[in-house]
Amino acid sequence: MKQEFIDKYDTFLFDCDGVLWLGTQPIVGAIEVVEQLLAHKKQVLFVTNNSTKSREQYAKKFAQLGFKGVTPDNIFGSAYATAVYLKQVRNISKAFVIGESGLQSELESEGITVLGGADPALDRPIAPEDYDQIRPDPTIEAVVSGLDHKFNYLKIAHAQAHLEQDSTLFVATNIDSTFPTNGRLFPGAGTIAAALSCCSGRTPMTMGKPSPQMMDAIKAKTHFDPNRALMIGDRLNTDIEFGNEGGLSTLLVLSGVATKEQAEAAVELQKPDYIVSSIADLL
Amino acid sequence: MKQEFIDKYDTFLFDCDGVLWLGTQPIVGAIEVVEQLLAHKKQVLFVTNNSTKSREQYAKKFAQLGFKGVTPDNIFGSAYATAVYLKQVRNISKAFVIGESGLQSELESEGITVLGGADPALDRPIAPEDYDQIRPDPTIEAVVSGLDHKFNYLKIAHAQAHLEQDSTLFVATNIDSTFPTNGRLFPGAGTIAAALSCCSGRTPMTMGKPSPQMMDAIKAKTHFDPNRALMIGDRLNTDIEFGNEGGLSTLLVLSGVATKEQAEAAVELQKPDYIVSSIADLL
Repeated sequence: MKQEFIDKYDTFLFDCDGVLWLGTQPIVGAIEVVEQLLAHKKQVLFVTNNSTKSREQYAKKFAQLGFKGVTPDNIFGSAYATAVYLKQVRNISKAFVIGESGLQSELESEGITVLGGADPALDRPIAPEDYDQIRPDPTIEAVVSGLDHKFNYLKIAHAQAHLEQDSTLFVATNIDSTFPTNGRLFPGAGTIAAALSCCSGRTPMTMGKPSPQMMDAIKAKTHFDPNRALMIGDRLNTDIEFGNEGGLSTLLVLSGVATKEQAEAAVELQKPDYIVSSIADLL
Repeated sequence: MKQEFIDKYDTFLFDCDGVLWLGTQPIVGAIEVVEQLLAHKKQVLFVTNNSTKSREQYAKKFAQLGFKGVTPDNIFGSAYATAVYLKQVRNISKAFVIGESGLQSELESEGITVLGGADPALDRPIAPEDYDQIRPDPTIEAVVSGLDHKFNYLKIAHAQAHLEQDSTLFVATNIDSTFPTNGRLFPGAGTIAAALSCCSGRTPMTMGKPSPQMMDAIKAKTHFDPNRALMIGDRLNTDIEFGNEGGLSTLLVLSGVATKEQAEAAVELQKPDYIVSSIADLL
């Protein structure tokens, strides 16, 4: 490792896709970099907007890809950030959720009762009797939207009804318009939030990068020193902006979305402190 | 009938919900007004943003509510307007459709081959094998989105893939954010267009009121004289704007959405020429 550079930091925050792996393929050197940072007793955090997996599920993905020693405590996803925010900042105890099992389990881990979520009863077209039964429920304190591959009209209609209530918070885990799957971009969590925004006339509070809510949630849990922390990512408008706004140093890797030309032309808030071709350059 | 007022016009364009009926209940006097206009050999057109019904299906709804003598030729819905525009203006012959049987049958009536639409094969959650099979299809010349109560992630993913092609048109029958059903507002066609806009990064051309495309399509089919035509509606930002922009006289009824105060405070393009409490005032 480039020791004098590494020594400047105690905490390393990583984006994952485009930095550590591409699809299901680890990027050359990524496994070694993570292994060495952990061996040097650095604080390593993986910060992902992916809302479909819980931290436990995400840790399993690391293991499957060959990363050793990564535990749920190393992982900070938008599902977990949303759960922490709702419970610890807003004291929410019941939510209607459009999202998958990972989001549901993070919310339930924080003690939030979930309606919707992975409930298979909603995986069907709307039926005539639903129109009389779908009503605002005053016990629903928040509507949470994340990526849901079983998203449908019935779920939108339920969420919209609850959002008629001004007292019901509207929170999106993230608003990424697309989600990389099998080498292509499929509709992302932002697509679902956009549908809900349209029919409810409301704008969600968003949790994922570059939202400062995500940074606040990480800081609340890990108490790291931003002056001794490095955010490593491949996207200027999420990862680098997120790190810069949080007062961290920022490192752009060119193995993912952003190019060197884009980085050099970026607005101040999205300009990385350092640029390397890939994570292997830290070896 | 107030003869001297009626005599000023040869053509009467009606919005339906809020003007002729509320939900499933005809507004007092509406049936008589339509009957008398038809008896006086006036040209009567019902102009609706509803994209779920074909003209045939809509004519049946009039009959069920007690209106006599209303035929498909009296009806101009956003589904039909979309079909006419795609075929006659853009010469489209194949489209992927998010929408219901009414939209599909109007498109097919114009000779357009429809993929998606009311096809029950898409009424299911996305499956793992779909991720490899969903691809842009260069034979799809347009993606059409309307209200679809069986809307789901699988349909969005198909539409998004086709919209990756710049050559594929993106047309929304209408972008009404909500749709009145059973005395409440449910998610409307705009909700579905918003989801597609987000994941595709594209903005649809829209057909419904107040889009001038809708007026062009009506004029192309009926050749009426705007100087001798009256648009009657209950919404300022759709019906009245639509009529004013088309050069018609406009009449606001207060039996639906807009209030007298809103009409008086409206911007010039949305100010009606006449205001009456309900359609019965024409008797």
